[in-house]
Amino acid sequence: MGILETHRVAVVGASGYTGQELLRFLLVHPGIELTAVTSRQEAGRSLAEAFPRFAAAPRARDLQFVEPDVGAISATGATIAFLALPHGVAHDYAGPLLEAGLRVIDLSADFRLRDADVYEEFYGHAHPAPEWLEEAVYGLPEIHRDRIVEARLVASPGCYPTSILLPLIPLLEDELVDAGSLVASSASGASGAGKKADPSLLFVEVNESFRAYGAPKHRHLSEIEQELNAAAGAPVRLTFVPHLLPLRAGIGTTIVADLNVTPEEARDRIPAVYGERYGEAPFVRILGEGAFGDTKHVAGTNFLDIGWAIDERAGRLLVFSAEDNLGKGAAGQAVQSFNLMTGLPETTGLPTL
Amino acid sequence: MGILETHRVAVVGASGYTGQELLRFLLVHPGIELTAVTSRQEAGRSLAEAFPRFAAAPRARDLQFVEPDVGAISATGATIAFLALPHGVAHDYAGPLLEAGLRVIDLSADFRLRDADVYEEFYGHAHPAPEWLEEAVYGLPEIHRDRIVEARLVASPGCYPTSILLPLIPLLEDELVDAGSLVASSASGASGAGKKADPSLLFVEVNESFRAYGAPKHRHLSEIEQELNAAAGAPVRLTFVPHLLPLRAGIGTTIVADLNVTPEEARDRIPAVYGERYGEAPFVRILGEGAFGDTKHVAGTNFLDIGWAIDERAGRLLVFSAEDNLGKGAAGQAVQSFNLMTGLPETTGLPTL
Amino acid sequence: MGILETHRVAVVGASGYTGQELLRFLLVHPGIELTAVTSRQEAGRSLAEAFPRFAAAPRARDLQFVEPDVGAISATGATIAFLALPHGVAHDYAGPLLEAGLRVIDLSADFRLRDADVYEEFYGHAHPAPEWLEEAVYGLPEIHRDRIVEARLVASPGCYPTSILLPLIPLLEDELVDAGSLVASSASGASGAGKKADPSLLFVEVNESFRAYGAPKHRHLSEIEQELNAAAGAPVRLTFVPHLLPLRAGIGTTIVADLNVTPEEARDRIPAVYGERYGEAPFVRILGEGAFGDTKHVAGTNFLDIGWAIDERAGRLLVFSAEDNLGKGAAGQAVQSFNLMTGLPETTGLPTL
Amino acid sequence: MGILETHRVAVVGASGYTGQELLRFLLVHPGIELTAVTSRQEAGRSLAEAFPRFAAAPRARDLQFVEPDVGAISATGATIAFLALPHGVAHDYAGPLLEAGLRVIDLSADFRLRDADVYEEFYGHAHPAPEWLEEAVYGLPEIHRDRIVEARLVASPGCYPTSILLPLIPLLEDELVDAGSLVASSASGASGAGKKADPSLLFVEVNESFRAYGAPKHRHLSEIEQELNAAAGAPVRLTFVPHLLPLRAGIGTTIVADLNVTPEEARDRIPAVYGERYGEAPFVRILGEGAFGDTKHVAGTNFLDIGWAIDERAGRLLVFSAEDNLGKGAAGQAVQSFNLMTGLPETTGLPTL
Repeated sequence: MGILETHRVAVVGASGYTGQELLRFLLVHPGIELTAVTSRQEAGRSLAEAFPRFAAAPRARDLQFVEPDVGAISATGATIAFLALPHGVAHDYAGPLLEAGLRVIDLSADFRLRDADVYEEFYGHAHPAPEWLEEAVYGLPEIHRDRIVEARLVASPGCYPTSILLPLIPLLEDELVDAGSLVASSASGASGAGKKADPSLLFVEVNESFRAYGAPKHRHLSEIEQELNAAAGAPVRLTFVPHLLPLRAGIGTTIVADLNVTPEEARDRIPAVYGERYGEAPFVRILGEGAFGDTKHVAGTNFLDIGWAIDERAGRLLVFSAEDNLGKGAAGQAVQSFNLMTGLPETTGLPTL
Repeated sequence: MGILETHRVAVVGASGYTGQELLRFLLVHPGIELTAVTSRQEAGRSLAEAFPRFAAAPRARDLQFVEPDVGAISATGATIAFLALPHGVAHDYAGPLLEAGLRVIDLSADFRLRDADVYEEFYGHAHPAPEWLEEAVYGLPEIHRDRIVEARLVASPGCYPTSILLPLIPLLEDELVDAGSLVASSASGASGAGKKADPSLLFVEVNESFRAYGAPKHRHLSEIEQELNAAAGAPVRLTFVPHLLPLRAGIGTTIVADLNVTPEEARDRIPAVYGERYGEAPFVRILGEGAFGDTKHVAGTNFLDIGWAIDERAGRLLVFSAEDNLGKGAAGQAVQSFNLMTGLPETTGLPTL
Repeated sequence: MGILETHRVAVVGASGYTGQELLRFLLVHPGIELTAVTSRQEAGRSLAEAFPRFAAAPRARDLQFVEPDVGAISATGATIAFLALPHGVAHDYAGPLLEAGLRVIDLSADFRLRDADVYEEFYGHAHPAPEWLEEAVYGLPEIHRDRIVEARLVASPGCYPTSILLPLIPLLEDELVDAGSLVASSASGASGAGKKADPSLLFVEVNESFRAYGAPKHRHLSEIEQELNAAAGAPVRLTFVPHLLPLRAGIGTTIVADLNVTPEEARDRIPAVYGERYGEAPFVRILGEGAFGDTKHVAGTNFLDIGWAIDERAGRLLVFSAEDNLGKGAAGQAVQSFNLMTGLPETTGLPTL
Repeated sequence: MGILETHRVAVVGASGYTGQELLRFLLVHPGIELTAVTSRQEAGRSLAEAFPRFAAAPRARDLQFVEPDVGAISATGATIAFLALPHGVAHDYAGPLLEAGLRVIDLSADFRLRDADVYEEFYGHAHPAPEWLEEAVYGLPEIHRDRIVEARLVASPGCYPTSILLPLIPLLEDELVDAGSLVASSASGASGAGKKADPSLLFVEVNESFRAYGAPKHRHLSEIEQELNAAAGAPVRLTFVPHLLPLRAGIGTTIVADLNVTPEEARDRIPAVYGERYGEAPFVRILGEGAFGDTKHVAGTNFLDIGWAIDERAGRLLVFSAEDNLGKGAAGQAVQSFNLMTGLPETTGLPTL
């Protein structure tokens, strides 16, 4: 490994689970100098004090959380800012930071939809900063790599969308499955719900529990449809059902779709389709037919694993994906975009096993 | 509670998780006198020694496991036998016990299929005792109550089938959903895989793990199709995907199907359809539209909870069910059949909260 | 079972985990008619609405939570009230209810200490109702059975104390171990911390976590010492360390103490000592030497299991206990006291396996 | 980071949990070229095939498990071998590999005891290769750093011993606590029991379970006493009680000991004692008085965290430690020794957060 160029980076809003995972990656990222890390809640404490896991990381001991202030962040010389803020809050910082000349990687949902009307339909209020929607790039590196490289504002995808889009987009583009027949059933570890004092997220409520929620119109459905529609070239018909799992992190998604081709043809073409699309993608692992994926094999990483099965009796394809909702589903993916934006090797700073 | 008639009962093969749960119910069942409990593995030990949970139950201290022997079982005066044996073993005992004059409630899959060819297709070998298939009654009390009452041989349903059949059968009978559009995604706690020394079931392998398995042609699919076909009056098209959950017991199932009616009509008719079918069923709880069910609310019980949501954008119905795979999915359901067979109140010996 | 006398009973403050478990026992208790169940938070909802587990229990559907009001409770004809309120709140209701002529079983810590000074030392403020301390009976049925039978005010013990007192008291009374050498290390499932929206109790924080807390001067230490001192006839020297476990319910306690006798004598006398004390106690199961206990064997029950080992090299005795912190550690024990107070069989309404 | 010297390394017996964690470290270790990885069970498969987590690691795809053969291992040019074999098997390879000129880091218990008689007492049979005991160095880097640097045979410590020795040794050396008063209560995640098809380690048996085991004379006690005796300069009196936890990895240990000094003096001296001993130790984090440690903060790392509390009422010290049983308790510690043996920076290849 040669000498990497170092980029001055700020993280805005880093006290939640996504923020912590993002810091875990950034603190050891060889191409990053953290100049500011903000958190209203933790302001004044060092990263090491706020996150005991980081207690022995030199950068974590020296760096204190500060109040989020665009001018102060800009004054640190940061050229790129990660926003790990709640949905509906990120836009307050994204615009000013962009205007101050920084590039922004936003992990919230604020800029993921190109259409402000869809935003309003799913989020229940007018988009607060629609002027940035056109410029924002949906930060799925395997799909929008070229645009991410040039982007000023990357809207890093949600955890569920990533687990559905990466398996489905190549199949829709190649018309292997019927875009009018899509059913996606996902299940997520509890960190996906955030670090909030909600009694329904207490250990006693999640342990020994499995439950659907949010269906039929979970907010993430909007961005899933946006990207699938683009891949299919027409509106898809998708039902998406999320479930809550008694595990820390990990999303498993099972997609069922009618095959447009015979099982034999599917069996032949799917490996080629995935191979073509993801053969060079360092974070998508194609497990093959008959493999199901397992959240424990991707926990803590930026990988998304894909397997599938062909239901010959029903003429359907089953696709299985597994990712860490905090990794490829959030913080890892954002770092991957960062690497592309700065010209670093795509895997820089991300664990490879 | 008045004086209940007492029935002499044997349990064959009670050392697994289903057997243990069955004993938990039978040991406090006021209408049962256990005359024989067999287990090759535990023979010679008392129930209290084999199962520390039962250490203080008087009947458990006095009753020893014995070797399974049909003559000896019959000699105890037992008139009904529960078989909690592995699939492919139960039939060795069912026929001889029936011939000895006992009624049999078999918790294995051996007699669930009416068609020996379907058995051979799914189980990979010819049915070993096809002469009993016609007489066997599929032991889903809410569907086959009258036949169970009279049955000599009850084939108690599998855990996954129960979680799919009870929600779907009324909807198919009423043609509310398209029988050609069915997708069922289920997830089960680890006890469903049995008490076997399989490294993939170790704590370390199941904890923090979520994974599909067995698709697209899990053995349980055969009995699910058999019963759904009967309800629909024609072969259904169903994809069934089971998943393994990091919890002890519980199955959550999410069913997606195309609506045959408008969302408005569905909204009106579904409560009525379920109310008509299950209004008097003590173990089916209709949670209503917008409710998802939760395995933790049924753990340890014989309940199956049903909720649903209408996906108006996709024109689909989502149905959610939750049960304990060892309860309504196995041991509880078998006791429910016992109560019907013996004319006892249906809830006798089964916890109601 | 013959016809039991029925008692009119109120439960004050039943929205937490202990309250829910208490209701689970009371709703099926054959000697109880619930006349009032209060909860500020759930007032106006039925028990079935507040607790989905209870959805099919007839009493739970008919009974609504009401605001806690002593006059109204008294007007329902209740003769005994359970208080499942937080520490520091229970005394607000205990006195007035007693004055209104009810007997009270308080599951909080408010009346467990006989000495108001010790209360002040451990709870940080003067006792708010010291006039009731003398009358209050520490509700450990195996130790204070006779006094509980007659009591107007039972202070039901804490979960940790129960797990330490029942194993240790007979050993101290018989001077088998050195009262100056006691070390108790306990670990509790997360329900012991209550149903409060505390981020440190979120699933993500408790899962895959094991941590001590509260040492060296946990509040429960005060009642442990009080009862051990009484058993030893002199102040004991005890170190108590609680830990938080990633499980729903269950306390495992390991006690280490210097033997006052030789290992051989200990081996002979311990079974006799426990047998004499607990031979007739339906909820204490003596597992014997070399047995360790396991929380999963007592979950959902009112049992406390005791095993032990003799460390001959160190001349010490190791005692192990297991209980459900919500069962024998809280709600079950309170019901056990209720049964004694009302002359019912001690096990009435409590599961025996 | 400059260019590191690369060492040719073999791993013997890498199919268990410790072996997998060791490979996870070694596959990204910049100073290591893996020349041979053996496993009877996995021979012929690549590391990527055997361990799905490693599927995308280049070295893991190229490297196949081979049968364990000392000649073949030696022929690969390996100069150091890690043995991740079961106790009682490792010595079969250690001697021959040493004789073939390799240095050996043994993660089993085979060479941890200096005294063959103690081995026989605890392991039940004569030591099979006593000729190596004198040369073997107990591989606790913070205690035996200088000897490890020079060692040919490092006996890497057990998981429980590490969690007890590092907190206690400085306190005994400084005579802050009474060596005759030691009680250590430890709890370990299930991976500590290994990847063996033992029904008692199934998910259903470990989940919602907490239980002691192995007391009073667990095999690890022998090595704990050996090292504590050395620190105290005399035989200590220690009771050690291990427990099994429902979590994947992590050991929490609580030690209780009588203070030899006043609480005030303890409060003053302990930070200094630990600071002096571990101030430069990169993997021991001193959390301070009032801190308890938490297994989730060390999971996946090579850290051991130490906190303490002073029980003034009892005149005792409570010390708490947390480590990952597969990390600092096994594989991480072995890599740390490797780094010392090869002159690499001590933290090379080990995650620092």
